[in-house]
This record gives sequence, structure tokens and C-alpha cells, in this order.
Amino acid sequence: MSPNRSVNRLLQYRTCLLKFQDLGFEKVFSYNLGEEAGVTPEQVRKDFSHFNIKGHKKGGYNINELLFTINNIFKSYKVQKIIVVGMGNIGTALTQFINFKNNNLTIVAGFDINPTALKKKFDIPVYPVNEMGNFIKANRIKIAVLAVPGPAAQEICNTLVTAGIKGILNFSPVILKTPNNVSVKNVNLIDELEGLIYSSVLS
Amino acid sequence: MSPNRSVNRLLQYRTCLLKFQDLGFEKVFSYNLGEEAGVTPEQVRKDFSHFNIKGHKKGGYNINELLFTINNIFKSYKVQKIIVVGMGNIGTALTQFINFKNNNLTIVAGFDINPTALKKKFDIPVYPVNEMGNFIKANRIKIAVLAVPGPAAQEICNTLVTAGIKGILNFSPVILKTPNNVSVKNVNLIDELEGLIYSSVLS
Repeated sequence: MSPNRSVNRLLQYRTCLLKFQDLGFEKVFSYNLGEEAGVTPEQVRKDFSHFNIKGHKKGGYNINELLFTINNIFKSYKVQKIIVVGMGNIGTALTQFINFKNNNLTIVAGFDINPTALKKKFDIPVYPVNEMGNFIKANRIKIAVLAVPGPAAQEICNTLVTAGIKGILNFSPVILKTPNNVSVKNVNLIDELEGLIYSSVLS
Repeated sequence: MSPNRSVNRLLQYRTCLLKFQDLGFEKVFSYNLGEEAGVTPEQVRKDFSHFNIKGHKKGGYNINELLFTINNIFKSYKVQKIIVVGMGNIGTALTQFINFKNNNLTIVAGFDINPTALKKKFDIPVYPVNEMGNFIKANRIKIAVLAVPGPAAQEICNTLVTAGIKGILNFSPVILKTPNNVSVKNVNLIDELEGLIYSSVLS
């Protein structure tokens, strides 16, 4: 199951709203938001209606109120505990990035095949991957970042799912097979770059 | 301008094909690929036709041939030189990741506001951001990775575009304004995680 596109757009609208707020605006119309996000005004209104967000057709939306409402949709959880599997460059960078930036998302532990062989200092505890299942169950972790090499990814994914993980942010260059009640979001950085090169340089 | 969706799917098919190859298969049909990639067989055939990839309706596709063809579409360039702007955690990790993995993509230089203040060892030269424009022109760089804090992103983006950059992989949590002939691909990791949490834990 793929995370809903309207969810992704709602997050994108939030980014746009923060920019408008930063520029000193107080109100927006759906066409402002649509133009900034690259979608039609109808799409904006459809998405808002999907999330039960109400506006004033003629007066537009108050930016502060709208941000408050959107933040509430995503922040109905307290702190969301996340684990990272694979503490190579990407896993380590993401851990530092997330834990530095955002108070509602916390990477609580990392896992690696052989943590003692990693010659790095980590800001979080890093355990061997065979302790992963028990850790997930004991701490009721629902979200994992997967940053292991391709050949290891599906097997680790299976362990994550069996232990109770419901959402995976996957940096491994592999399309994971998961049950329908587990969401996977793929971030394939090489593919992103190759796609970009194709669109912008080759064609 | 957003990179074409069919390009992204073609890259995804390649990932699937590598998996099939790894599992020892020699042939695939569009429905195998579609199932693995989460699209309809018609979509697979439509995408292949868009890129002028020919198959045998009854015999399926030979996996090796298909990979060769797809690789040729993306590798009609020699080595693609890329720069990274913002040598924080994400910029540094991405540099190591790309330069370690892939021979056709090379990060040739990094840029940062004050490189001498960064207490890290880099595998590539890192220059002050005010030398960026000249470097891009002198080395005919077309692709940049943008990994700077949000408030700095649009201004740096403008400099990149003026200097001749045609594709930007954007890790900054900002929607960039660019001319139509510049492609931007956004990777907003916090948004990806929040979207995943919303889809898999909250709803």
C-alpha cells in the first residue's frame, strides 16, 4: 500500500503555506496554493474537502488557521519513535537530520549487522540486527527507515513486518513486498538523479 | 517542470528487472513487471512504447535485452558531473553514497557558506558558495543537489539557474521557483516520514 497522494499534497501545501507566512501574507486563495504547489485550484479544494478543512469561498483561507489545522492532522500523535536499519552514510545522516530538526519524530535506535565494526560515534544506541524484532515489540515501534544494501532489504523488511512495523521509508534500491496494511515509501536517490538527468540534460 | 512520470516508472521497472534477474529469471511479461511495480500491464506496455521499447507479445521480454535497452536510454551520457550545495549531514552522506555506488554519476565538488568552518574531512573539494557560479560555468555542470536550510534555498537556486544548471535534486523543505527548462525533483524527508506515519499509524 502506497501512502495516499492527497496526504503528500497536503504536506506540500503546508510547505507552501510556511513560505507565504514567511513572506508576510495573511490570507491565501486556493489558486495561490495551487499555483505554488503546481496543481489546479480544484485539486486544492478537493484535497481540503477530503480532510474536512473548511474555507471561506470569497475571503480565502487564513494562513495561520490553515497551518494550525493541517498541523493538527499530522500531529495528533505525540512523539513518534522511529528506528533506522543500516547505519551507513545515509542511515547515519538521516538520524542526525531528523533528531536535529523535528521534535515530533525521534530516531530512538539504529540497527546494523555488526555495530562494533562501525568506526563511528553515534548519537543514538546502535544494536545488532538480530535484536531488532525484540526491540520493535518491546518499544511498540511502528515506523522504520530501511537503509541497507539491496540484497539484504527484503529479508530485513520481512523481520520488520513480523515484529509489527506498519510504515517503512525505504532507501534500499529494491521494491519491497509487504502486506496490504504496511505502507512503504521509496526514496531511490540514484533513480531520482538519473530521472533528473534524463529530463533535464538528455531530452 | 517536474521529471516525467514515465521516466520514473521506467527506472522502477529497471529495479524490478534487476530483482527478477537476481532470482534467475530470463523472461518477463508485462503483467509480471506490472505486478512487481504496482501498475497495470497496460501501463507497462504504454511506457515501453513511449520509449520505443519493443517486445514480443506472446514470448514476453528477454530480461537481459530489456535491461540493456533501458540502461542505454539512461546511459547515453558518459559520466555526469554533479555538484552538491550545502555540505551538512545530508549533503555529505549523499556525496559519499553516490561516489561510492555509481560510475556514471560523480559528485565533483561541494559548496558551503563557510567551508573552513566545517570540521569534517571530505572526499571531494569543497568551496565557498560564492565561487559556485564560476565553477558551474567553467565545468559545464548541469545537475546540482541542493541540501541547504530552507531560508537559503531559493536564492541559491537562482544562482544555480543563472549559471546554467538544468536539473536540481532538492532536499531543502521549500518549493523552488524555476524557469520551465529547469527540472526540480523534491526529496522532503520529514514530509515523507510524516506522510508515512499518517498513512500507517494514524489512519
